[in-house]
Amino acid sequence: MSRPVTIRDVARAAGVHPGTVSRALDDEKRALVNAETAARVLEAAQSLGYRPNRIARGLKTNRSYTIGVLIPDITNPLFPPILRGIEDRLGAAGYTALVVNTDNDPSRERIHLEAMRARQVDGFISATARLDRELLDEIGAGTVPLVLVNRSLEDRSVSSVTVNDRQGIGLAVDHVVGLGHTRIAHVAGPQNLSTGHRRYLGFVAAMQAAGLEVIEGLVRYCRYFTEEEGARACAELLDGGEGPTAIVAANDLVALGCYDALEVRGLSCPRDISIIGFNDMPFVDRLQPPLSSVRVPQREIGTVAADLLLQSLEDGGEAREILLDPALVVRGSTAPPP
Amino acid sequence: MSRPVTIRDVARAAGVHPGTVSRALDDEKRALVNAETAARVLEAAQSLGYRPNRIARGLKTNRSYTIGVLIPDITNPLFPPILRGIEDRLGAAGYTALVVNTDNDPSRERIHLEAMRARQVDGFISATARLDRELLDEIGAGTVPLVLVNRSLEDRSVSSVTVNDRQGIGLAVDHVVGLGHTRIAHVAGPQNLSTGHRRYLGFVAAMQAAGLEVIEGLVRYCRYFTEEEGARACAELLDGGEGPTAIVAANDLVALGCYDALEVRGLSCPRDISIIGFNDMPFVDRLQPPLSSVRVPQREIGTVAADLLLQSLEDGGEAREILLDPALVVRGSTAPPP
Repeated sequence: MSRPVTIRDVARAAGVHPGTVSRALDDEKRALVNAETAARVLEAAQSLGYRPNRIARGLKTNRSYTIGVLIPDITNPLFPPILRGIEDRLGAAGYTALVVNTDNDPSRERIHLEAMRARQVDGFISATARLDRELLDEIGAGTVPLVLVNRSLEDRSVSSVTVNDRQGIGLAVDHVVGLGHTRIAHVAGPQNLSTGHRRYLGFVAAMQAAGLEVIEGLVRYCRYFTEEEGARACAELLDGGEGPTAIVAANDLVALGCYDALEVRGLSCPRDISIIGFNDMPFVDRLQPPLSSVRVPQREIGTVAADLLLQSLEDGGEAREILLDPALVVRGSTAPPP
Repeated sequence: MSRPVTIRDVARAAGVHPGTVSRALDDEKRALVNAETAARVLEAAQSLGYRPNRIARGLKTNRSYTIGVLIPDITNPLFPPILRGIEDRLGAAGYTALVVNTDNDPSRERIHLEAMRARQVDGFISATARLDRELLDEIGAGTVPLVLVNRSLEDRSVSSVTVNDRQGIGLAVDHVVGLGHTRIAHVAGPQNLSTGHRRYLGFVAAMQAAGLEVIEGLVRYCRYFTEEEGARACAELLDGGEGPTAIVAANDLVALGCYDALEVRGLSCPRDISIIGFNDMPFVDRLQPPLSSVRVPQREIGTVAADLLLQSLEDGGEAREILLDPALVVRGSTAPPP
C-alpha cells in the first residue's frame, strides 16, 4: 500500500487495541502485555512493514483514547440508538466512551465533567442541556474538542449534530393540514430546551405558511418531555372550550400522554381527534392506534457526532453544524377531521 | 464524626471528583486543577479535618476510578435501565463507566477488553455472553474484579447478579394454568444463552409441577431474542397441527413476534390464544392487547452489580451470586381458554 502503515493498521491486523500495540512495541512496556499478544503484535508490525520511528510519535500524542459522553438519561428511548451510533464509530477508531447520565442537573454535570477530565479524556460528546465551552474552560478543559448532539449554541462556536426540528414539525403540520384539519393544536415541549422551543417556532411557522391561524388556547406547554406532562397539557387543551381536531405533539412521549387524556374523556383517536408525535421511538408502531410520527435518524446522530469529534482530534478543525433531515411516518393515529 | 474522614467525604463536600481532591492536595499536581476548584477542595479538607497522611495512601492505590461495562447492545430495551443503575451507583462512589457494545461477538469483546485494560480500569461489569475469568487471565487482567449481570458461571467462581428465571417462568405458567389452560406452548429463546436455556428448563419444571404434559410440537425455539424469530417460531407452532390455547414466550420481543404471527392468521389474543412475555419492557402496557409479562427489576440488577463490584474493590472478597425475584404482571393478553 502507498500510504504509511499506522499503528491502527497493526492493531487491526493483530486484533488488538492501538494502545496495546504501543506497549507491545515499546521495550520498556512490553511486560505489561500478555506474551502471546505481544508476539502477535510484533509479527503483524513486521509483516505490514510498520516503521519503528512511528512508535515514538504514537506515544508522544499521549492520548487516553477515551471520549466522555454526557447524556441526560439512557432510559429515555431517544438515547440508546444515539449512544450506539457514537460507540460504534468510536470503537472502530480505537476509542472507548466514558458514559454518564446527568439528568440535566448542573451539579451532576460538573462533577462528571471533572471526573472525566481527571481521566484525561481526549474529547466530549454531550447531549445534556448545559455543557458548553464556558463550562469546559472553567474546569480547565478548554482545549479539548467538544461536539453537541440534539442541541446547538446560538453563536455556532461549538460543533453540533441536530435534527432539523422546524422542518420536522413542518412535515407534521403539513400532513394534518393535507387531511383537512384547520383547528390544529400544539402540545409543546419545555421552552427552556432548544428542541422544545424550536419545535414550537416550527409549529407557528408551518401554520402561517399553510395560511392557518394559531388559535389561542390551542397551544399548551409541557414542563417536561414526559407522558404525564403530555396528559396534563392535553387535558387543559380539551377542557378549554372548543377543542382541536388534530394535535401536533412535541414528541412521542407527549403524544402518549395525549392518548391517555383522550381516553379519560371517552374520545377516540383518530375518529374524534388526530394525534401525531415526534421521534418515532421504538414500538410506537404497535400502539393502539399506531402513532404517526416524525422519524429522527437517531443512530446517525451518534455516528455523525463521533465522526465530527474524530475529525476534530485529527485536524483540530473549525466548529461545524450538521443538520439531519427528519422524515414523516404516517400510521393510524391521523385521519381526516370528523 | 467518629469514622476517619475519607477522600470521598472531601470530594462530596467540595462537589468534585475524588481524583480532583488527590491532585488538589498534592503540591506537585495542584497546577492540574483549576485554581478556584483547588481552593474549594483545600477549604473542604480543612473544615472536615482531613488528615494529609491519608493522601499518600489515596495516591498509592493508583486507581483509575473507571469501570469497564460490557453490554451486548444498548438498543435492546433490557439494558438501558441496567446501565442506568450501574452508572448511578458507580457515580455516587466516584467511579465512571466505560461502556461498550459487543453484540456478543467474541472478537469485539476481546478488542474492547484489551482497550479497557489499556485504560487500566479497576474492574469489569459484563452482560455479554462470553466474558469470563479465563479470558481476563488471557489478556493479563486476571486480578481485576469482575461481576456478571444476567448470567452466571456454572462453577460460581465469579460474582453475578441474575434474575431467578426459573421462578419467573413458573409465575407465567402458573398464571395461565390458573386461568384453565392445559395446552400450553413455550416459544423458547436461544438455548446457547443461559437465559434462554434456564427459562426453557423452568417451563418444563413448572408444567410438571402443575401435573401437565409438555406436548411435543408445542415447544419451539428462537435463534435470537427478536420479534422476527418469535414470529417465525410461533408460525411453526400454529401451522403444526392442533395448536395451543396459551403461549409462554421466552421474552417480550418474542411475545411481540407471537402477536404478529397470530394477526397474520386472523387469530385474536387473548380470545383465541393467550400470550405472556418476560421482562416487562417499557411500553408493553400500551400494546393492543396490553401484554401480560414477568417483571424483572432491571435497574436493581445494575445497582446491585455495581455494589458487588465496589465491595470487591474494597475488600477483594469472595465471589457472590445474587438472585433477584421477578414478579407477575397481569394485563389484557391472558384470559381463560376459548
